[in-house]
Amino acid sequence: MKKYELDQTREFNPLGMQNFVIHDSEFFKIINFNIAAGRIFPVHSHDLEGQVSIHVIEGTGAFLGDNDAAIPAKSGDILVSDISEPHGVRADTDLRILVTIAPPI
Amino acid sequence: MKKYELDQTREFNPLGMQNFVIHDSEFFKIINFNIAAGRIFPVHSHDLEGQVSIHVIEGTGAFLGDNDAAIPAKSGDILVSDISEPHGVRADTDLRILVTIAPPI
Repeated sequence: MKKYELDQTREFNPLGMQNFVIHDSEFFKIINFNIAAGRIFPVHSHDLEGQVSIHVIEGTGAFLGDNDAAIPAKSGDILVSDISEPHGVRADTDLRILVTIAPPI
Repeated sequence: MKKYELDQTREFNPLGMQNFVIHDSEFFKIINFNIAAGRIFPVHSHDLEGQVSIHVIEGTGAFLGDNDAAIPAKSGDILVSDISEPHGVRADTDLRILVTIAPPI
């Protein structure tokens, strides 16, 4: 077993997005993205089997989808999306998300 | 895609543990356990392939393992363990964890 501390990766870059791979195994990949206020994690998708959970651990913004969909997102909210379904995130404040991808890509 | 709100499952039972299945699919299972102060999620393991991430979202306590191992745990800490490796959690304060199991069991 291995412990990771998210308070060790609390870095923001006002020009964009910081990302830290927390864990990567054959079962899942866990990544912390820190998105500066006003920035967007662009909507994207991959033609692959699997799902992604996007857990907001700090800040407020929106989960983004196809056709300009925007679902309000705050700390404690989790979006689960197929990897093949368009998904993204908008940061209204500095926003931290923990993304878990299974199986890993 | 589907959104879940962890502030909707913030319930503690002083006599034990509350658990809420947040998401269950063929790819992963996500469960919120709320453990009252002084209680323990007993050390356990399953003889199965896969890994579990245990993300503390509120409170302090310890990640537990074999041979009385106890690793301090606070909000923002994540333990990743093989499902087959003994793991548990001790709540020193009211403690909330988000557990992701891949593949789901």
